[in-house]
Amino acid sequence: MKIAFIGLGIMGRPMALNLLRGGHELIVWARRAESMRPLLDVGAQAADSPAAAATDADLVISMVADAPDVEEVMLGAKGVVDALPLRDADAAPLVAVDMSTIAPAAARSIAARLGERGIAFLDAPVSGGEVGAIAGSLSIMVGGDVAAFARAQPALACLGSRVLHIGASGAGQVTKAANQILTGVGVLAVAEALNFAACSGVDAGRVREALLGGFAASRILENHGQRMLERKFAPGFKAWMHQKDLNIVLQSAHQLGVYTPLSAATAQLFNALVGNGQGDDDSIAVLKLLESLSGAAGAVGDAA
Amino acid sequence: MKIAFIGLGIMGRPMALNLLRGGHELIVWARRAESMRPLLDVGAQAADSPAAAATDADLVISMVADAPDVEEVMLGAKGVVDALPLRDADAAPLVAVDMSTIAPAAARSIAARLGERGIAFLDAPVSGGEVGAIAGSLSIMVGGDVAAFARAQPALACLGSRVLHIGASGAGQVTKAANQILTGVGVLAVAEALNFAACSGVDAGRVREALLGGFAASRILENHGQRMLERKFAPGFKAWMHQKDLNIVLQSAHQLGVYTPLSAATAQLFNALVGNGQGDDDSIAVLKLLESLSGAAGAVGDAA
Repeated sequence: MKIAFIGLGIMGRPMALNLLRGGHELIVWARRAESMRPLLDVGAQAADSPAAAATDADLVISMVADAPDVEEVMLGAKGVVDALPLRDADAAPLVAVDMSTIAPAAARSIAARLGERGIAFLDAPVSGGEVGAIAGSLSIMVGGDVAAFARAQPALACLGSRVLHIGASGAGQVTKAANQILTGVGVLAVAEALNFAACSGVDAGRVREALLGGFAASRILENHGQRMLERKFAPGFKAWMHQKDLNIVLQSAHQLGVYTPLSAATAQLFNALVGNGQGDDDSIAVLKLLESLSGAAGAVGDAA
Repeated sequence: MKIAFIGLGIMGRPMALNLLRGGHELIVWARRAESMRPLLDVGAQAADSPAAAATDADLVISMVADAPDVEEVMLGAKGVVDALPLRDADAAPLVAVDMSTIAPAAARSIAARLGERGIAFLDAPVSGGEVGAIAGSLSIMVGGDVAAFARAQPALACLGSRVLHIGASGAGQVTKAANQILTGVGVLAVAEALNFAACSGVDAGRVREALLGGFAASRILENHGQRMLERKFAPGFKAWMHQKDLNIVLQSAHQLGVYTPLSAATAQLFNALVGNGQGDDDSIAVLKLLESLSGAAGAVGDAA
């Protein structure tokens, strides 16, 4: 398949590489020309705009920062829609897949405007981070038309080990938002429980071990809890990205009138973490914030 | 071993039965005489006070409601301490194991006062609920003297499949409190994420399925999430018990000066749930509370 790939950052670059390895033909565009270099070296073509990239493509994939970036590359000047007059009249209708994490409402709005121009748009955010992007083992949550999903499948299969069509347009972003509720609240809850134990003078490692055997067990207690005990605060998933994603949750909840007390409480802690200059730490750094606000008999990671 | 068992409620009765099945000799006491009947029918002896139960026992186990009950059966009139003048002078020192969920500070205080009288006290709260009590598969988290723990082991092995000595006196209750932080916050977080999805018009069951493949995966998303989708609000673990346990967390955090924002936010929801007369529902009923406070495009459990 001929794929236009837009956005070659920490996530986009290894994803694009996996598409090339999967035998797809790749035309890339990135805001910074030097981001394209590693892809061109291994056989991708460069385009000088999203429109140019999309002109001969079967599929467009974007992996950018936030909703305004998606709007710009899809609907802005020299955006994907500008490719339409240049495309072969016999070509199949274009499918655009945005894999960035943006608000569900923004995804639906972009889908509606592209739909009017005959472009099928899928929202397909991912989880699994840089490690999953490199390994091609991302979890991909897709919203939008089922026929368009079927056409995008051969590409998505190169990027993720778990590719699920969730529902109509926006459903992928809603699923990602729900994921960020559970992971954001989950990281803070594990930090709170381990800090509570340490401040009570009890070995937090021993507590984690005990809790992994019961209903408190979670992948976050297992993975992030272990990193808290080792006090390894390097990312992983950066705190400022979790702050951004929780803001998507809170903005959506505001628009829909949905009561989300734990997301709201958790977002405050991420605000404080980013405000304190720790936004580039992993999100487990919420532990340090709790510690700075607590009287401690001991710290998480102290030996028994 | 000759065991005095005090408290024969929903948890205590099946636990006492498992000790009998394990070949231990049992002397039981319960506030309500009729609670003893099922145990006497299968070979337990009745005592007319905790002191009488403890007089010839090697080990005392209590499974009662809250700290004042533990204080009373251990240190009150006709409590376990009153057995001391009646015990054989050659008998090994008595070990008392409280398996109720009470505040860590209360457990330490009781341990100190019993220690002055020569009784070793272990705090050994459990998780796993009535199902685990019946199956003998409880998770048991123990704080206190290691030698006393070794003496209690043969009894505890009949009650739980996972019996862990965590640390000094109080460490078992601290671990249980940490468990209740993660399960209480966890149940509310899963309810919040699924309700967010449903209110956004997305099939919450499909979202749960997608999230189980990533870092959001937890036993609560698996088990409690499924029950939310089936809207089965029968306990399980009653909301008022979770409310009580979160109050232990908040009181301990108050005493120690520990910052516990998610426990505090979650406790408010459980307060409201109990205040609304839903305390006897399972703790997953927090979902109904979120729904009553949200504008919904759909409900958790609706088909896609």
